[in-house]
Formats: sequence, structure tokens, C-alpha cells
Amino acid sequence: MAYELIASEIDKNKTRFIERLREAVEIPSVSAEAAYRNEVFRMTDWTQANMEKLGIKCRQIENGIEDRPDGSKLRLPPILFGHLGEDKSKKTLLVYGHLDVQPADIHDGWNTEPFKLIEIDGKLFGRGSSDDKGPVIAWLNAIETMQALNIEIPVNIKFVFEGMEESGSTGLDEILEQHKEEFLADVDWTCISDNYWLGKEKPCLTYGLRGLCYYAVEISAPKQDLHSGVYGGTIYEPMNDLVWILSRLTDLKGNILVDGINELVAPLTEDELKLYDQIEFDVEAYKQDVGVKTLTVDDKKKVLMNRWRYPTLSIHGIEGAFHGPGAKTVIPAKVVGKLSIRIVPNMEPEQTDALVVAFLNKLWKERGSPNKFRAIPFHSGRPWVADFNHPHYQAGARALEKVYGVKPDFTREGGSIPVTLTFQNLTGKSVMLLPIGACDDMAHSQNEKINVFNYIEGTKALAAYLLELAHI
Amino acid sequence: MAYELIASEIDKNKTRFIERLREAVEIPSVSAEAAYRNEVFRMTDWTQANMEKLGIKCRQIENGIEDRPDGSKLRLPPILFGHLGEDKSKKTLLVYGHLDVQPADIHDGWNTEPFKLIEIDGKLFGRGSSDDKGPVIAWLNAIETMQALNIEIPVNIKFVFEGMEESGSTGLDEILEQHKEEFLADVDWTCISDNYWLGKEKPCLTYGLRGLCYYAVEISAPKQDLHSGVYGGTIYEPMNDLVWILSRLTDLKGNILVDGINELVAPLTEDELKLYDQIEFDVEAYKQDVGVKTLTVDDKKKVLMNRWRYPTLSIHGIEGAFHGPGAKTVIPAKVVGKLSIRIVPNMEPEQTDALVVAFLNKLWKERGSPNKFRAIPFHSGRPWVADFNHPHYQAGARALEKVYGVKPDFTREGGSIPVTLTFQNLTGKSVMLLPIGACDDMAHSQNEKINVFNYIEGTKALAAYLLELAHI
Repeated sequence: MAYELIASEIDKNKTRFIERLREAVEIPSVSAEAAYRNEVFRMTDWTQANMEKLGIKCRQIENGIEDRPDGSKLRLPPILFGHLGEDKSKKTLLVYGHLDVQPADIHDGWNTEPFKLIEIDGKLFGRGSSDDKGPVIAWLNAIETMQALNIEIPVNIKFVFEGMEESGSTGLDEILEQHKEEFLADVDWTCISDNYWLGKEKPCLTYGLRGLCYYAVEISAPKQDLHSGVYGGTIYEPMNDLVWILSRLTDLKGNILVDGINELVAPLTEDELKLYDQIEFDVEAYKQDVGVKTLTVDDKKKVLMNRWRYPTLSIHGIEGAFHGPGAKTVIPAKVVGKLSIRIVPNMEPEQTDALVVAFLNKLWKERGSPNKFRAIPFHSGRPWVADFNHPHYQAGARALEKVYGVKPDFTREGGSIPVTLTFQNLTGKSVMLLPIGACDDMAHSQNEKINVFNYIEGTKALAAYLLELAHI
Repeated sequence: MAYELIASEIDKNKTRFIERLREAVEIPSVSAEAAYRNEVFRMTDWTQANMEKLGIKCRQIENGIEDRPDGSKLRLPPILFGHLGEDKSKKTLLVYGHLDVQPADIHDGWNTEPFKLIEIDGKLFGRGSSDDKGPVIAWLNAIETMQALNIEIPVNIKFVFEGMEESGSTGLDEILEQHKEEFLADVDWTCISDNYWLGKEKPCLTYGLRGLCYYAVEISAPKQDLHSGVYGGTIYEPMNDLVWILSRLTDLKGNILVDGINELVAPLTEDELKLYDQIEFDVEAYKQDVGVKTLTVDDKKKVLMNRWRYPTLSIHGIEGAFHGPGAKTVIPAKVVGKLSIRIVPNMEPEQTDALVVAFLNKLWKERGSPNKFRAIPFHSGRPWVADFNHPHYQAGARALEKVYGVKPDFTREGGSIPVTLTFQNLTGKSVMLLPIGACDDMAHSQNEKINVFNYIEGTKALAAYLLELAHI
């Protein structure tokens, strides 16, 4: 009965909830651009004020100074901590979200003013509407609704809202680490709404993300770039060595040829395989969205597994060689190939780095070039995968089924959200991604939107999830 | 006797000749930069004034307007035509040179102010000292000296001095073509001093240059760049296709694998091979200059032949992929590989283009990728080779032997000076390159210089050459 009351109340307040999102979208809290940095502070204050109206105790954790690439310094937005309920008999949920947005300019191809919320055909266009202001405000809407109806929230809730997510979450990990024994000590579950459904119709819960290992392959020979007319024909050209090496890392279909990599991948379990059977995913629509006629694999399950649970290797580019339009005839003296591997369980970055460097060195020996060669591991991030059979996930699934009338898909994603792993490591408890936006929300792109349906039903889903947490 | 008088008089005027070069170097006639364009006009006027003092009849040929890459328009410097002597009983020599220079900035690593002439240890440092103001003024010095001594110049001399050589000689070919039947009609030989000795000690005459064919290899698939985490593993990545193709164009040592290319190359003649025996060239010094320990070939003759008389293929870079420092994880949607082949007799650009495009298409078929592929020939320039047994070359050789006491080497060069072929085609007569600078003059680089020795002995060499032309 509680859920039905809540759902009906949320529907009644639809217009007001959209107005609340409008206020947030009109604060252009772009973290990447110095000119907008004050707006991130303003967005943080706005959020705190809205939280305090609900009785959430807030504090802003100072995040220090950022050294900008241009040499200037800029104050970092604080991390906003919130705390609702201190009932020792209840368990505690941690909610994460971010208040900053990607840059946006109407001249980049937006059909509407990006920092206005414009409703067209049931879609709310505006920067941050889906990533991540909509989900953050949906939490506040859900709590407000339960309070208005005097329905008890069965858990204590803690909030971590940051203002630098779109700029690498600068400082967040350190601050969370410092508050591990205090603010994070009693957290039982973490819920993150900062990703998207796999499609446009069916909700999902996300239990895995790939990690990343990045590499540079540096080949150099002469002291300086050389005129190809004057020197061509006598020099072992580093660029020739580099394309040779890079061409030997994958086969035509992108299968990784690095010795030992594929052996590290966690075997597919029966349990996991079953999940893929049920997942709703339209391969043809995916091809159309990407703009290709042929994929490396054509079967639904294989497409999803290649995106989520198998490692992939991409060559991103070459530093040091001519890259402009037109023609230039120089022999580059030093070229650096850039590539990365998306890693999955059970690939540890250290193991992966060792295998990749060994393979590159083996190739280099086979090449027999007299040039200088270095295989350099850059940064890396571990993959994340959670137990989708955990009661936390089952509670999430029951909540979504209640709202949408359909069992959610259990999905993974190919990219990374590093804070997910941070929360899992610091709390030692279950972390779940509960997206409310649709796959075509165009986060990070022009014409970002959230559907009114997703925003309002998502608000219901978060409330339903809070109710379900009582039954774990 | 005439030569000895001239040589002695040139030595006496050394200081004055250096002062004349100083005046020229202090005019920063950089053709590439709009801010300096007026200085190219000033340099043209300065040269005309100095020529008219010698009785050379001058006229400036209007060269129209340049469309700059930034969309602005800029007046092109005129071509300076000059004419000394109209004696129908004499033959006519055409002299070419250029009055503009490469950009230079002391902050780029110059040890001295680039637009001042600074003498250190017998070297005259300054932008344009060697490329090409030194040689241009050496012609004027030589003529002035012969006039002062009342020694008859045994030929009529015509001059073509341009102001856009360092920016692609814009408009020059068209103007020369327009004056083919008039100004160029009675030319018997052309002499160009716009290159360098093979080494630092021994003079040379240059009888060949390589041509150039430039290609783009374009591979594309998705509509837009893609996130490698989200899409990696399902897409045929264009970059993987491109490195595969590029790695199949040459072997380790740079030998061209394109079918049919090597069969086009003119066979080595006995006569030509003998030239290489005599040429003074230090392979070890060459390696040191370039900064490598190993060359693709180690024998003196092979090194020179690979630079001069065999085709070579270089990969210059990739457009469309990540090229900055640091790490970026995008899958580029469209990548364009850039490569060029330095062509030699008897490779015609049309033939070469057909073979390269056919080979690239064959490779693409072998690759079997579903992506879009285009092999695009860009511009091309023919190779140039002259008959080094021509009496014109013999006259040049006698002149150099008189000045330096040693027979010059007959050399070729691996790069291109397109105007050489233009003059040969429009006059139908022998064209010769008679360099006066040394191989380490650093034209186009920081700390350009000409040795006082090369400048002064070069002035003598040009006078000696004028005298020798009487004996053809």
C-alpha cells in the first residue's frame, strides 16, 4: 500500500519536480571550465539548501586547490556530505551522485539553449538533465514524498555529492579515504545512479564495469625530424617500426593476440550465461546508432559479452607524427603509439601490464630494428564486478519490477566509473548501479535529455528501492 | 690571367662583400608570415637597386594576390627579372635565386639574433646567409668585380629572383610560362645556386633531384568517434585496419613492397657508377649528423644511391586519430594515413600513382574489413636528372677546379627543387645546380650560417664559371 500512495503522490507533484530540475539545469555547473567554476559552488549550495529542507544534515568538505593545465590555480568545489536519520536500529544506505556537468554550447549543435530545461514531446532537454542532476534530484523528490505522506524511511541515508566528476573526480578518493573510519564506517549498501539503461524501454541494474590499462609504445632514432627527400632510404624510420608493431596486437576482428591475456579472463558461468538470455537488446538498433553495417560478432549475447565481460584492445593514435590536414614530408624522429586494453575480472592491472610489456618486447626483438624502443604502462584502473545474486540486488530488482511491471535486466558496462570500486573497497559492502535514464539520453553529447517518464518513474523507483531495503 | 685578377680583387673586397650580405640579412624577408610580407617587397627593391648599379635592367612582374589559410588576402611579392647585356653574338645564361627566407625566432634556439649577420670563427650566422641571400649576392659581387677590372663578361645574363620560394614558389611557374616566348626564349643555360655541397670540404655540381608522389589512405566506419569502453570489442576499428595496411608497404629496411615500383627505376649505368667511386662522402659523419648508429645500407655508394637514385617510401603520420600527449581512450571513426614516395627516373607520377593505388586496393581486399576505404593520390612532382657529360657541366667543373684546386663531385639530391624542372622544360636547355654553401649550413634550421670561405670562394667560383662559359 505504501508504494501505491507514494507513486500517486509523485504523479501529483510531477510539475513541481520538473520545476526543481529546471532550477538545477539553469545553474551551468561545468567543472572543466574555469569560467564556470563558481557555478559548481552555487550548485553545491543549491543542493545543500534543498537537502536541508528535508532535514538532511549537510557539511561541505573542503577539497583544496586545483593546478590547472595552463598553470593557474583554482579552488576545487567541496564534497557535499549529507546524513538523514541516525536510528541505530536501522541499516544505512550510501547514495552517490554528482552536481557538475559536461561543457555545452548552443553552437556545438544543440537544438535548444543547453542551460535551459526545454520540454519537447515528453523529453526534458538540457545539460545535466540526465547526467547527473535528474537522478540526484529524484532522490530528494522521493524522500520529500515519503516525508509528506508520513511514510517511514526504513534506512538511514548518507549522501556523497561531488562537483568534479566530469573532470576526473579530483580529490574525491582522498577525502573518502580520510572519512573511511567515520562517515563511511556504518554503510551497509551503496547505490549509484550515474549511468543508463541498456535500451529505451526496460530498466536494469548494473553489476559490472570494465577497468583500463593504458600503454605507450615509444620508438625513436634520429636526433630530430628529418627531410624525407634528403634522408629517406638510409634511415630505419621509427614510424615504419611502429605501424608494424601496432598491426600485430589484434587480428582483423579485434581479438587480442598478446600472449596470456585471454587466459586471465574469468570463465563464463552458467548463472551468468542465463542472464544474457533474458536481456533485451536490439543488435540492429545498436548498429544503426553506431553507423556500421557489420559488427565483429553478430549474436546478441556475443555483442554484449564483448562489450562487458571480455577484454578489448584499441589503438587510439600516434604522438609525434604529422597529424594535420594536407601533406607534410617529414620523417618523424620519435613516435609514440597509444593503446589501451579494457580489462575484466580476473585481470589484475599488474599482471596485464607485465604480459603486454613482455609481448611488445618480444615483438620488438622479432622486428630486429636498431632503433630505440620503450613499452610504457601508463595509468590503470581495476575492473569492478558485483554479485548480482546479493540480497541488495534482489531488493533493487523487486523495486524496479514494482514500478515498471517487468523484471529488470542485470547488465554490465564496458566503460569505467572508478568511484564504484572506491566505495566497494572502503565500505566492504555491496555497491549497485541503479540507472534511471535511457540509453539515448546523450549524456556528454549535444541535446542531452531525460524523458519525463524516466525522471518521474525513476523517482518512484528510488522510493520503492528504499522501501525494499527494509526487507533485506 | 683574368681569373687570377678577379680572385685577387674579390679577396680585397671581402669586407665590403660581407657588409653587402649584412644589409640583406637585416631585411627579415620571411615569406610565410603575413607580418613580414612587406619586408619581402623591401628585399626585392633592395636587390633591384643593387642590380641597377651594375647596369642590369630590371623589371618587377606583378604576381597577384595570395589567399591565406586564415581566409585573408595578401599581395604576393613580384618576380624580379633582370637583364645584363644584349649582345646578339653572345650566348645567354639564366640565373635563378630567391630573396625570401624561412621564419626565424631567437627563442627557437638561435645562439645569435637571426636577422643580424654575426661573424664567429669564420662563420657568418644569420637567417638567409646561405639560403639564398649569400648566393644571390655572390652573383652581384662577381659581376661588380669583373666590371671594375674591365674584364668582359663573355655571356648575356638574365636573372629571375623570386620572393616566395620558401612558401611553395606561388605564381612563379605561371609567370615563367607566360614569358617563355619572350624573356626565356634565348636562354642557353640555366644556373641555380640554391642547394649545398655534399660535405664541408669539396665542391660539387648537382645534376639530379628526386620527385615526389604523395598519398592518403582513408579508412572510416562509424558515424563519429566512439568511447572505447562502451563500443570496444564490437566494432572493426579503422585504426587497426590502417596500421595493418601501412605495415605492409615496406620491409624492415625500407625496401618498397609495392608491386611494380622497383621495375620502373632506370638501370644504373657504368658511367654513373664511376661517378660514385670518386665522390667524397663520409658515412660515419653522416650517421653522427643524423644521430643514428646504423643505416639501412652501410656502403658509401649504396647510401648515396638510396638517397639520390632509388625511390623511397616514408609514412609521415595519421590524421584523425589522437595525437596529443597523455592518454585519450577514443576509437577514432575516420583515420587518414599519409605517405609519400620519392620518385626517380624513369618513374612517371601517373604510372606510380596507378601502381600504388592498385597495391593499396589489393591489400584492402586481402584485409577483408567491412570498413570504408579510399586510396587517394595527392599532388606529385617529377624527378629531374640532367646529362652530367654536357659541355655546360664540363665548364662548371673546370671553373670549380680552378677555384678550389680539386675536381668537383657530380652529385644528385634526394629532395626536390621544382623550378629546376620548370626551367629545363621551358628553355629546353641544360640546367645545372652550382651550390656554394656547405652541408652544415643549417638552412631551414636554427643557426643558419655561411662560411666566409664559402661566400668568398663561391663569389670567385661564379666569376670563374662566367669565364668558362666562353669556351663552350
